[in-house]
Amino acid sequence: MERREQILVAAAEEFDRVGFAAATIAAIARGAGVSQGALYFHFPTKLALALGVIDEQNVRTFDVVSHTEQSPAAALVGASHAIADLLRTDPIVRAGIRLSLERGEFHAATVSFYEQWIGGIVDVFRLAIAAGELRTDLSAEQLGATVVPYFTGVQLVSDVRTGRSDLFPAVATMWRVVLTATADPAHRDRLLGVVDETFSGRGVRGRGTT
Amino acid sequence: MERREQILVAAAEEFDRVGFAAATIAAIARGAGVSQGALYFHFPTKLALALGVIDEQNVRTFDVVSHTEQSPAAALVGASHAIADLLRTDPIVRAGIRLSLERGEFHAATVSFYEQWIGGIVDVFRLAIAAGELRTDLSAEQLGATVVPYFTGVQLVSDVRTGRSDLFPAVATMWRVVLTATADPAHRDRLLGVVDETFSGRGVRGRGTT
Repeated sequence: MERREQILVAAAEEFDRVGFAAATIAAIARGAGVSQGALYFHFPTKLALALGVIDEQNVRTFDVVSHTEQSPAAALVGASHAIADLLRTDPIVRAGIRLSLERGEFHAATVSFYEQWIGGIVDVFRLAIAAGELRTDLSAEQLGATVVPYFTGVQLVSDVRTGRSDLFPAVATMWRVVLTATADPAHRDRLLGVVDETFSGRGVRGRGTT
Repeated sequence: MERREQILVAAAEEFDRVGFAAATIAAIARGAGVSQGALYFHFPTKLALALGVIDEQNVRTFDVVSHTEQSPAAALVGASHAIADLLRTDPIVRAGIRLSLERGEFHAATVSFYEQWIGGIVDVFRLAIAAGELRTDLSAEQLGATVVPYFTGVQLVSDVRTGRSDLFPAVATMWRVVLTATADPAHRDRLLGVVDETFSGRGVRGRGTT
């Protein structure tokens, strides 16, 4: 790991543990195993560190959504599984999402994070409607604007209640609700099957390799 | 307002503005217009203040759910509207819900908050299933455990994106998704009508008085 990333990971761990306000540069430098001077060389302020974590989290989470799949609805399910996986394993993603719910100094970065997310998901919902997978009175815009908060709440409450150990089944229930409400009857069983397969623990990655 | 409540409101405003870690007893005492000594008499620590805010928020939000209605599903919709209204107008409810998503020292109070909430909502979903309003593969437990996080995420993202000015339409969309997925076909149109009426701005309170 190069030094800049080492510092970002240490900052993420500290922000995730105590929040932005209580985090200190000294603790972050200690966590990264660098001097405070070396830290300031890369990130002149605590705010710069937080924005660095949020940016890096954006990159890592948007990466998982960009796969091409023939079924747009299935692609969304797969992306949510991948992000849930990152939330369980990647301190930068965990801290970035935590910081994005804090107030004040991050506000601009945070709003743009949600706008980007919702915009990206709206595009995929639009494809899913065009492909006939979904048939619903709700527009692609309404679906994107409700699924992103739904996922946000599911992962937060899972964190509070179980330290995210029930995150996969909780996200699976989210998709059962959303797809039962919106899937075209001709696609419903297939899409609910994708949810079961994706979150069963066997996972879509195993397909074809066993 | 008695002095204890005055202090709790000032604490709520400060916690809501800057979060727990950055809030100071001095600022809270100033906001309440009392001396720090008077404040310590009621709340010996900052943690005691936060737990006081969380407790008071619990009381205020549970109050709105306890109305009896002939339609359990409609009662849930009405309760969510009342809580959305409190989130827009009551600093104690706003701060209590914000604190309940922080980590560390509140963890016990926070977990019990979600368990109580989910338990209460599960009971109403059970009634709605028994009354034949809902017919779904999801159990009352799964419904309660997914609707509470859904609402949590909707109000948080509405706060970040619009300062909660789109909270009512966002909660209405949540119910359209949940009820389309779960309502018995014989009750679906009526329940979607309840959602429209409740969140249209005319509001259920106006019924019969106009």
